[in-house]
Amino acid sequence: MTDTLKDLGEFGLIRKIDELIREQGIRAPGVELGIGDDAACFRPRPGYEILVTCDCIVEGRHYLPDRITPLDLGRRAMALNISDIGAMGGQPRYALVSLGLRGETPVGYVEDMFRGFLAELNPVGASIVGGNLTKTGDGLFIDITLVGEVEKGKMLRRSTAREGDVILVTGFPGHSAAGLKLLLNAREGEDLGDHPLVRAFNVPSHRAIEGKAVADSGLASAMIDTSDGFLGDLGHICEESGAGAELIQHKLPVSDELREAAVILGQDPYDLVLQESDDYELIITCPPQNAAGIREVIERISKDPVTEVGRIVGASRGIAVIRPDGSRTLVTPEGWDHFAG
Amino acid sequence: MTDTLKDLGEFGLIRKIDELIREQGIRAPGVELGIGDDAACFRPRPGYEILVTCDCIVEGRHYLPDRITPLDLGRRAMALNISDIGAMGGQPRYALVSLGLRGETPVGYVEDMFRGFLAELNPVGASIVGGNLTKTGDGLFIDITLVGEVEKGKMLRRSTAREGDVILVTGFPGHSAAGLKLLLNAREGEDLGDHPLVRAFNVPSHRAIEGKAVADSGLASAMIDTSDGFLGDLGHICEESGAGAELIQHKLPVSDELREAAVILGQDPYDLVLQESDDYELIITCPPQNAAGIREVIERISKDPVTEVGRIVGASRGIAVIRPDGSRTLVTPEGWDHFAG
Repeated sequence: MTDTLKDLGEFGLIRKIDELIREQGIRAPGVELGIGDDAACFRPRPGYEILVTCDCIVEGRHYLPDRITPLDLGRRAMALNISDIGAMGGQPRYALVSLGLRGETPVGYVEDMFRGFLAELNPVGASIVGGNLTKTGDGLFIDITLVGEVEKGKMLRRSTAREGDVILVTGFPGHSAAGLKLLLNAREGEDLGDHPLVRAFNVPSHRAIEGKAVADSGLASAMIDTSDGFLGDLGHICEESGAGAELIQHKLPVSDELREAAVILGQDPYDLVLQESDDYELIITCPPQNAAGIREVIERISKDPVTEVGRIVGASRGIAVIRPDGSRTLVTPEGWDHFAG
Repeated sequence: MTDTLKDLGEFGLIRKIDELIREQGIRAPGVELGIGDDAACFRPRPGYEILVTCDCIVEGRHYLPDRITPLDLGRRAMALNISDIGAMGGQPRYALVSLGLRGETPVGYVEDMFRGFLAELNPVGASIVGGNLTKTGDGLFIDITLVGEVEKGKMLRRSTAREGDVILVTGFPGHSAAGLKLLLNAREGEDLGDHPLVRAFNVPSHRAIEGKAVADSGLASAMIDTSDGFLGDLGHICEESGAGAELIQHKLPVSDELREAAVILGQDPYDLVLQESDDYELIITCPPQNAAGIREVIERISKDPVTEVGRIVGASRGIAVIRPDGSRTLVTPEGWDHFAG
C-alpha cells in the first residue's frame, strides 16, 4: 500500500524530507541553521549583497499533472527560481520550499519532488534551508523562495539598457511553448515524454551559471531571463530602461526542432520564438564593442549558442521586427498574463 | 462595477500594488532593489546574520473567507511570519508576498490584503521587496517569505533548553483556538467580529519586539512561538533539546474571557490553553535566576503578562501537567497536524 500524507502526518513528512535533504543535498556555505526551527539562519559573505526571489507553480496552470513526473516537476519549479537569481548575475545559495499538498498525495510523490529540487540545487551549490507544508483542498502548488548572493557592484538589472546597445539571447526561446503545444495536440496515448521540445517544457534549463559569468565580466548593460517569453521580457527591459528595440527577424534563433514543430502546429516559427514561453534563456544587452567578449565568456562554459538579434533604440520607436524585405512591424510585448485567460 | 483581476491583468495588478506599497509602506534600510526585477536585492548589515522563514495560509483551511475582512487576512498572514522572525530574536526586514488568486477576485480585495501586510510591517521596520502573483483554479493562498536580521551570537533556538530551566510564556495561549470555536458555534447571523477571542483568531498579534528584546538581553536559553499550540511548541522545544517538561496546571494563564468561553463551549479552560491554537505568543526557557530579568525586559515594552508555568526536566519524564492535588498527568505534545484531518 502506498503511504499518503494523511497516513504519515505533517511532522512525519517533515522528518522524512529533512532526512532526504541531509542525505542527498549539499550544504551551502554559510548555513548557520537549516530546517527545524522558526526560521533558517545564514551568515552573509563580506563584500556581497543578498538577492531574493520567489516563484510559484500551480497544478493545472503551469504544469499538466499526468504529463510530468514528480521528479521533473521539482526540477522545473526550482530551475525557474535559479534562473531568476542567475539573471541578476547572482549565485543561488539557500532555498525555502513551500508546498500546498492534498492529504491523498502519496509520500513518494513528495519525496520525488524533493529529489528534483536537489537535482537542480546541488550542481549550483545551493541547499534547502527551510519551507512550509500546507494542506490544500484542491490543486497542488509549489512556491519556492531562493536566496542568492552577488558581489557588490556586479548585479545586472533590467532597467539599465541604453540606446545603441546590441541585444543578445542565449539558446532557443520558444522551445518550451512549442513543447507545451505539442503535448496539448498529442493523440490519446501518444508518448511525447522524450521529445526535446516537450523536455524543454517539462524540465526547462536555466542559464544561471552563464548569467553570473556575464555579470562578473562587467561587459553587459542589462540582463533578464525569458520567463514571460522573449518579447514579453524584452518588453520589460525596454519599459524599465525607457527604450525601444529593433529585432532582425532572420537573425532570431530558430532550431531545426522548432521549425519542424512549427509545421506540425501550423504556426510561424518566429511567432513561437517571440511569444510567451517558459524557457529561462537570457536576454543580454551591451555596448556593441562588448558583444564578442560576452559571447566568449558564455562559450567558455556552455554549448548553447549566443545570438545577436537586434539593437536597443529610442523609446519612441517602440519594439519592432524588421522582416527580410526591410518592412518594419511594431509588436506589443505581451507576456504571459496569468489573469487574462 | 467592481474591477476583478481578470479585467486588470497580471501586470496591471503588479503596477497597482507597487504603487500602493510605495505610497503606504516604509522602506526598510539596506534595500538596494525592490519590486520590479527578477529578484530583490539588499545589503546585509555587518555583524549581523540573516534569518529567513516562510509561512502559508490557505482559504478554507486557515481562515474562513466570509468571516474575515481582507485587511485582517493580510494582517494575520503577515503577523505569523513576523512572529517566526521574532521567535529567533530577530528583526523583520524584507518580505516577499506570493499570492494565489482567482481571476474573479476583486482588485480592491487584493489591495486591502496589501494594506493589511503593511499595517503589520510598517511598525516593525520591514518592507515588501518582492513577490509573485499566480492564478489558481480554486482557493486563495497567501505565502509569505520574511527575511530578518539578528546580531551575531544573539539568535535563540528551540534546541537549547536545559534541565532545571524555568518555562515562561507571554500573554494568553488558547485565545485564538477559543475564538475559532466561538465562530464555528455562532448562530446564523450572529456577529462576533468584535469579540476579543475572535479578534485573537482573525488578527493574531505577534511578540516579535519582545522576542528581539529577550534575545538581546542574553538571559534566555531557548525560545519558540506558539504557532502549533502551547503544548505542541513546548513539545518542539523538548524534542529538539532532548528534554522533558513539568507544567503546574494552576499557574497556566487563563484569562477571564477564556474562562467564559470555556463555559459556553463546554470545555476545560486548561485544555484550551494547551491545545492547538494560532496565538504566536512566546515560550521562553531560562535558568531560574534569569526569570525576573526576562520579565523586566518584556514588561518594559509590553502590557501583556509573562507567566512562569513550569520547569524543564529530564527527557525520560516526558511532558506532564501537575494538577492541584499533586497528581501528574503525562500529555502528548500533538500540535496542529495539517494532514491528519
